Amino acid sequence: MENWEETALKDFVENGYKTYIPNVSIDCVIFGYHDHRLKILLSDIEGMDGNCLPGGYIKRTETLDEAANRIVEEKTSITGLYLQQYKTFGDPGRIKWDEFDLDQFSKKRPFKKIKSSWLKDQTISIGYYAITDFSLVEPRPGFMSTSCEWYDIDKIPPLMFDHDQMVRDALQTLRSQLYYHPIVEKLLPEKFALTEIHAVYETILGRELHIRNFPQKLLFLELITKLNEKRNIGPHRAPFLYKFNKDKYTEALKAGVTLV
Amino acid sequence: MENWEETALKDFVENGYKTYIPNVSIDCVIFGYHDHRLKILLSDIEGMDGNCLPGGYIKRTETLDEAANRIVEEKTSITGLYLQQYKTFGDPGRIKWDEFDLDQFSKKRPFKKIKSSWLKDQTISIGYYAITDFSLVEPRPGFMSTSCEWYDIDKIPPLMFDHDQMVRDALQTLRSQLYYHPIVEKLLPEKFALTEIHAVYETILGRELHIRNFPQKLLFLELITKLNEKRNIGPHRAPFLYKFNKDKYTEALKAGVTLV
Repeated sequence: MENWEETALKDFVENGYKTYIPNVSIDCVIFGYHDHRLKILLSDIEGMDGNCLPGGYIKRTETLDEAANRIVEEKTSITGLYLQQYKTFGDPGRIKWDEFDLDQFSKKRPFKKIKSSWLKDQTISIGYYAITDFSLVEPRPGFMSTSCEWYDIDKIPPLMFDHDQMVRDALQTLRSQLYYHPIVEKLLPEKFALTEIHAVYETILGRELHIRNFPQKLLFLELITKLNEKRNIGPHRAPFLYKFNKDKYTEALKAGVTLV
Repeated sequence: MENWEETALKDFVENGYKTYIPNVSIDCVIFGYHDHRLKILLSDIEGMDGNCLPGGYIKRTETLDEAANRIVEEKTSITGLYLQQYKTFGDPGRIKWDEFDLDQFSKKRPFKKIKSSWLKDQTISIGYYAITDFSLVEPRPGFMSTSCEWYDIDKIPPLMFDHDQMVRDALQTLRSQLYYHPIVEKLLPEKFALTEIHAVYETILGRELHIRNFPQKLLFLELITKLNEKRNIGPHRAPFLYKFNKDKYTEALKAGVTLV
């Protein structure tokens, strides 16, 4: 006798294309930063071996952004994440169904129809990415997942489908947008020391930045402003504090005017 | 009696989903720059009123980039354009079929089946953009189009579907990527005067840039290098020439390190 979840899954496999747009999915690369460490959130698909990005399909009534946010919430229990579309993936060989043991999936979820389901037709996937402070969120596996965990960016296991490529491209996008999207702003307190912003940039870019020249450039470009205020962090240690120049960020985001 | 093109069209409407991935299309925003002028390439769909971006579907054997390049070639006769994916559009109301006079289309192309064709299901569209020197290309209308022309960026007529939004977003992307993608490089000779690069940036950004501070920032960021060489353009007029610092551009494109 089937339970509610099995009935829902059977209906999804057989009739899902009536609710969701077929041939298109969404996959999400969720970065987490905290104190010099960059991580990424990985999930899985119940009944299949391996790790993958949290992903799903787009309801016919949803915008793409709404779908991405719902999928993250359903798969990871994280709410209110600011997701941003970065690239769409559609190489013909991106999902090699032949390499998957569908029988294994079928054993656990005995729906023979999956072999001819709309789910098996060629699928193009829209990549979204987000960054959050990983110490502030508690991911939990959701519908059709059994795991949902943070992995250090340099210890990611090989992923299913083309998700390795998706992670590489998301990281490149994150790095290239560090200066004109309000990314770093979300990871720092309103007032911060230069060592703190230095650590965020170094960790995300994955390389050393000059201790003096780097903040000098941020100041030259007017992305941050020095405050007439210090923070006591120990004897003889009270660095000046800085804040983001939000207008400059907003302007840059809208018109691409970071540099002029 | 049907001619070859009508037979091909009928087959496309009825059986196209076997060759092409349904529910996903590609639309292309092609910018053209020359001598202080920025234009955009608009096409149409034979049998329908109005202007739209050159667009089409993805063959099941193609990568997305291959499809985008083929579509541009088929619709505009332009070959070898460097197209770049920038955003995917999927709002539920992006194509309002009810507002289209399908009978008008059917009259010219009498295929009643279009009303229930795969073409009428909800479609998500992947946006590509490119920029070229419009004085060097000669667009011509291709398959299912009757027009293909350059329009000044500030004289674009209202477009079909959500193509106005696509153009706005492409322009924003173009502007925000001006500093770390090799965009401007394609529009200037190898050695150029500061007035020339100034004109390209001003025209694409659509606003005035400071005549001295602007090149100073480009030099500060090492995006351009001054050459020990001048060009004679008239009596008492021989400005120094500059060239792009290609390594810096490539580095910036790969790792987002434009500013540090």
